[in-house]
Amino acid sequence: MDFAELQDVIDRTYGDRDRERGTAPTVAWLCEEVGELAQAVRKGSREQQIHEFGDVVAWVATLANQQGIDLNEAAARFAEGCPKCDALPCTC
Amino acid sequence: MDFAELQDVIDRTYGDRDRERGTAPTVAWLCEEVGELAQAVRKGSREQQIHEFGDVVAWVATLANQQGIDLNEAAARFAEGCPKCDALPCTC
Repeated sequence: MDFAELQDVIDRTYGDRDRERGTAPTVAWLCEEVGELAQAVRKGSREQQIHEFGDVVAWVATLANQQGIDLNEAAARFAEGCPKCDALPCTC
Repeated sequence: MDFAELQDVIDRTYGDRDRERGTAPTVAWLCEEVGELAQAVRKGSREQQIHEFGDVVAWVATLANQQGIDLNEAAARFAEGCPKCDALPCTC
């Protein structure tokens, strides 16, 4: 799945509700999911980690949809290596 | 870009350093970037938001690489709609 596909299916699944709710509750929910991911990484099973990684990317996609941001465009900054030193591997 | 491409380029760019550092500092760094994204969403420019969304997905990819998790597999839970109610759009 690429970011555009994820953003599209998240919009079709949750978009109406997301637009009603606004961005601040989405930021709060994303933080909650990052906390759950942190716990799963520390002491969760592989299945729990997969679950929480999925929730985090879904909430990032929701927030990007609300802001009209294309995650492909955002991720493209890293496509050729480190955006700070322009090297691959990074030499920062 | 799909998740596999992002995870691959992040691994080639930062993988050696990431493996040395371990996961806890990556969780901390991801939280820092989520905070910067939250600020950019609240009061940043579109360019700042794109920048911060990119940083967040890059750090999620780093953490997934460290844990050996495939983000495509993680995101696939949402591919057919809401994983809780199995509906598209969600009817939860």
